[in-house]
Amino acid sequence: MNRGLLIVLSGPSGVGKGTILGELMKKEELNLVTSVSMTTREMRPGEQEGVNYYYVTKEEFMRAVENGEMLEHAEFVGNYYGTPLKEVERIRSMGKNCVLEIETQGCRQVQQKVPDVLSIFIIPPSMEELERRIRGRKTEPEEVIQERLAKAAQEMEMVSQYKYAVCNDDIQLAADIIAVIIQRYEQRINEGK
Amino acid sequence: MNRGLLIVLSGPSGVGKGTILGELMKKEELNLVTSVSMTTREMRPGEQEGVNYYYVTKEEFMRAVENGEMLEHAEFVGNYYGTPLKEVERIRSMGKNCVLEIETQGCRQVQQKVPDVLSIFIIPPSMEELERRIRGRKTEPEEVIQERLAKAAQEMEMVSQYKYAVCNDDIQLAADIIAVIIQRYEQRINEGK
Repeated sequence: MNRGLLIVLSGPSGVGKGTILGELMKKEELNLVTSVSMTTREMRPGEQEGVNYYYVTKEEFMRAVENGEMLEHAEFVGNYYGTPLKEVERIRSMGKNCVLEIETQGCRQVQQKVPDVLSIFIIPPSMEELERRIRGRKTEPEEVIQERLAKAAQEMEMVSQYKYAVCNDDIQLAADIIAVIIQRYEQRINEGK
Repeated sequence: MNRGLLIVLSGPSGVGKGTILGELMKKEELNLVTSVSMTTREMRPGEQEGVNYYYVTKEEFMRAVENGEMLEHAEFVGNYYGTPLKEVERIRSMGKNCVLEIETQGCRQVQQKVPDVLSIFIIPPSMEELERRIRGRKTEPEEVIQERLAKAAQEMEMVSQYKYAVCNDDIQLAADIIAVIIQRYEQRINEGK
């Protein structure tokens, strides 16, 4: 059995990473398993420990970082989010492809630790469309929206650090193309063994 | 018969656009035809009028630009290069997919004139590798190399303007993935008719 890939799906806030990941998860041939992240943010109604996140205090989170137990971590709008290494190892050693949906700052850390990570950046159809989507959520105060917009512009500059970038002007097309990228990359990695 | 696509292959100088295009041209199912560009640079030994380029004077080139006869044009290291609109139209109207290998500044102009252009950016494996490749040519004086390196760094920032970006760490893999992107995009465009 081949060890599974580590796949990072990233891109600016609001670009539709979650929707595309949902489409990818439907494709059984991709053999994807998402890693459950650790967070210091509060549990929201309907969420479950170990399903949506592992919920920890800031102290517990920092201890895990100091002990080298995190593959990557990032602060976002006052809360910490991170990927436990153990979780990723567990998935990959079962021969499953472990997929992370993470922020661009987290991706950089993963690339340093796992050079053969398959990193994919989702490009918005345009910056205007991205602003429309971020505003369309309507669940957040204006200052958080402004912070997200500024961060999105910064994040767009990170795209050249990724192996692949795919425009999300059509969710189905984007998901189909990412699926092919995963399959070809997997084939290439396994041939090289 | 469906009208052919317009495909732009772009990326920093030295990234291997030409090599990837060569691989793509071998894939007959992609139905690709390259457009012959117009240039003011001198013909090099072994080159042919109407095959490598249409060779014109600076005055003739500028007249074509002023008359709106160019899809895009760019200046590079003292010479002008451009794509005659007529050439692209001829190819697309035959149902062939017209592919342009152009500089990033030229791509911007094409996107403004042809919004559904399939724009693909080639990402170097790393900036260090790109420098190695540019230096490896050994046919150019240091000042031209320095100009190319500075321009490459600038060009990397353009990647978010493209629909797709593909890392050239393995030519065959890059060409295979670009081939799939072309086929899926073509399918999508033709379904939408």
